[in-house]
Amino acid sequence: MERTLIKDLHEHVGASTLVKGWVSVRRDQGKMIFFDFRDRSGIVQGVVLPKSEAIEPAKEVRLEYVVAVTGIVNKRPEKNVQEGRLNGDIELEVTDIQILAKADPLPFDMSVDGFNLDLTTELDHRALTLRHPRLQAIFKVQAIIIDSFREFMKSHDFFEFQAPSITPATAEGGAEVFQVEYFDKKAFLSQSPQLYKQIVMTAFERVFSVNKVFRAEPSATTRHLTEIVSLDAEMAFIDSWLDVRDMSESTVRFILDQLKTRSAAEFELLGATLPVMIEKTPTLSLTEAQEKIFNATGRDVRGDKDLNPEDERELCEIIKSETGSDFVYVYGYPTRQKPFYIYPNPENPDFNEGMDLLCRGVEWLSGGRRINDYAQLTDHVQKWNMDPAKIEMFMEAFRYGVPPEGGFAFGAERMTMQILGLKNIREATMFPRDMNRIDVRLNETTEDNA
Amino acid sequence: MERTLIKDLHEHVGASTLVKGWVSVRRDQGKMIFFDFRDRSGIVQGVVLPKSEAIEPAKEVRLEYVVAVTGIVNKRPEKNVQEGRLNGDIELEVTDIQILAKADPLPFDMSVDGFNLDLTTELDHRALTLRHPRLQAIFKVQAIIIDSFREFMKSHDFFEFQAPSITPATAEGGAEVFQVEYFDKKAFLSQSPQLYKQIVMTAFERVFSVNKVFRAEPSATTRHLTEIVSLDAEMAFIDSWLDVRDMSESTVRFILDQLKTRSAAEFELLGATLPVMIEKTPTLSLTEAQEKIFNATGRDVRGDKDLNPEDERELCEIIKSETGSDFVYVYGYPTRQKPFYIYPNPENPDFNEGMDLLCRGVEWLSGGRRINDYAQLTDHVQKWNMDPAKIEMFMEAFRYGVPPEGGFAFGAERMTMQILGLKNIREATMFPRDMNRIDVRLNETTEDNA
Repeated sequence: MERTLIKDLHEHVGASTLVKGWVSVRRDQGKMIFFDFRDRSGIVQGVVLPKSEAIEPAKEVRLEYVVAVTGIVNKRPEKNVQEGRLNGDIELEVTDIQILAKADPLPFDMSVDGFNLDLTTELDHRALTLRHPRLQAIFKVQAIIIDSFREFMKSHDFFEFQAPSITPATAEGGAEVFQVEYFDKKAFLSQSPQLYKQIVMTAFERVFSVNKVFRAEPSATTRHLTEIVSLDAEMAFIDSWLDVRDMSESTVRFILDQLKTRSAAEFELLGATLPVMIEKTPTLSLTEAQEKIFNATGRDVRGDKDLNPEDERELCEIIKSETGSDFVYVYGYPTRQKPFYIYPNPENPDFNEGMDLLCRGVEWLSGGRRINDYAQLTDHVQKWNMDPAKIEMFMEAFRYGVPPEGGFAFGAERMTMQILGLKNIREATMFPRDMNRIDVRLNETTEDNA
Repeated sequence: MERTLIKDLHEHVGASTLVKGWVSVRRDQGKMIFFDFRDRSGIVQGVVLPKSEAIEPAKEVRLEYVVAVTGIVNKRPEKNVQEGRLNGDIELEVTDIQILAKADPLPFDMSVDGFNLDLTTELDHRALTLRHPRLQAIFKVQAIIIDSFREFMKSHDFFEFQAPSITPATAEGGAEVFQVEYFDKKAFLSQSPQLYKQIVMTAFERVFSVNKVFRAEPSATTRHLTEIVSLDAEMAFIDSWLDVRDMSESTVRFILDQLKTRSAAEFELLGATLPVMIEKTPTLSLTEAQEKIFNATGRDVRGDKDLNPEDERELCEIIKSETGSDFVYVYGYPTRQKPFYIYPNPENPDFNEGMDLLCRGVEWLSGGRRINDYAQLTDHVQKWNMDPAKIEMFMEAFRYGVPPEGGFAFGAERMTMQILGLKNIREATMFPRDMNRIDVRLNETTEDNA
């Protein structure tokens, strides 16, 4: 018999059907045994009746065993129907059960409702905890975020390229870069595909990438990892930075729309709600944002070089109450506080045309217009005290005619965390790396790794 | 006026149209000036007539300048039509030309036909050479290969996950791994997502990933890089390794079909032809393959532990002449010659159920069935003299019930190289890394990197 996926069982009511999957729940009631069977598509309840030929083998079956189950798909009696749940109205009357693989006894409760581990234990047992529907829901949402980004980019004629991970030097210096023993030399792990995406943009006009970036953050906060997935876009022939804002806004809107239709079950399971994006996201300069905070709260951060976390929280609250929007763009940061490639406002060169998209009190996405003129870039490289030899390839790209351009980027893990309201970015990362953990806890493997 | 993409100009014959792009060709004929303008969508010829108001500004325009060009789209006279070429039947009569960005004089001939650099120079100037249509065609083909892989996987219910790049230890040892300074410890760059994709498969059943892998190959051959893009798939609930073969065959067939329809122009430009995949790809055991080589050539490699490059070439030639197929599967390698996780043939445990797909004389893809039974895995870990502590997470995944499973993998760069008949894998890699180059030549940057 062909295997039927559990989500399709309702098409087979009354028929004998073969299901393959794992045992999520087992309730031995003496004469009868109830199971929940799980496959990649969902969960269904199975019952082995006292007279079933499957009753003896079923007694051997334990949690997380892999089984091939034959059974009749029955409608449940009215009083047992669980509304709104996949297969809440059917169950499988088991007639045969074959064990495909056994499992050790579980080290903790893996049931849907009983699962309640601290994060350290959850990560210590990632290989097992990944089987839990709640964790699966998080990573399914993340996959939809990444997939929707790609889909939107492709539909807008952006070319996907593979940004390199190993880089020759760190243009902007900084201690937060990982060093690689590269034969008899040193190399570094990429902190951002920024310069590469700009290079590829000069050839393909519109480009995007989904690639790893690495930051040697010597901190163990709830928001920092050493390896993340960066989603990057860059576009030429813009009229102003507003084209970049609009493209990034449309991208986020598309992702939210996709999540609404494709991830409804996951949001329900996780008790998460999508943020509200109104028709035109409010957009303020840094100065305007600081004024607004002052006017609303009396707290005076006017003249500060950036928004601090408290500013971000308050600004989002003010905008939400004024407009209903969970999102707000802030643009126009002090030029010298930001990377050399960001375009200064021609009317007021002390402020640039960089922007951040904030939502629910934190930054979700950054971007802006970049300098496309070679002379201006050269001037910035000097002013920023950078070594031009370390960005030779980047500078060559801009030596030969580059249109006005800009782009944006966001991290897959942070957006997953924020969209789902998770407390720690490690919950939104399948195999999180930080200074204390690479799969295993590093302090316990000193001998191997020292 | 709204910008029109060059590929859409034929929809505007007789109309005044705005094009934005780069100058690919400039022929100053004294009274008239001819240009080829290039944007992301294609190339069109423009002519500036003597009486045009654009004639004076056009005299300033040089190669790779970025321009905004207004002009009338004219049908070319019959005798000037270039058949089969995009816009071969139209040209743009330029009425206005604005310079958006200037370019330095080019260091070498970048014209479509005059471009003829040795690979070292091409790579030294990657930021510029990426603008050449021939190079763009290569990377467009590569993007289609990767995109088609994803599309096929998703349509077959495979879940995309992000495999990590930083790993805690090298389970199988080996000198070909890069070491990372990880705070006060050591970490390593992933050589393969193999163990991670198996872990995620135990939770999601069908998984795939597109991720970087790193090999510290101390060689500078035409086939080796230190950083490549690995396309990986893994599937549970197989009946035998033939399910894996079939899935990989369907994947490659889908990619070839997509290239045929989506990349026809690129294949024509590059003078490349797609390999022939017949309805059922010939499939031989290693022993059968060696017999066949012996029978056809008299060269006796029977009993060798693997196919060597000469064997692979000859086998492909024999299969091609016998069946018309450019592809052939070889399976059943000596168990102890291959990684610990590959499933031994139960009938003859000295040979395993690993497989390779060969095409045009070289290996394109590898895979096979894996061991899913925990006791058997534990036994192999011992026999292979591995440290179980270094694969603790992997072993945990298999401790809790794993169905029969298998998978396959291939490198994006190698497949691009082979499909297009390129001579060096660096041609198929946008930013190739090897022991002598990371963007810049390493021997020339000793001071920075030593």
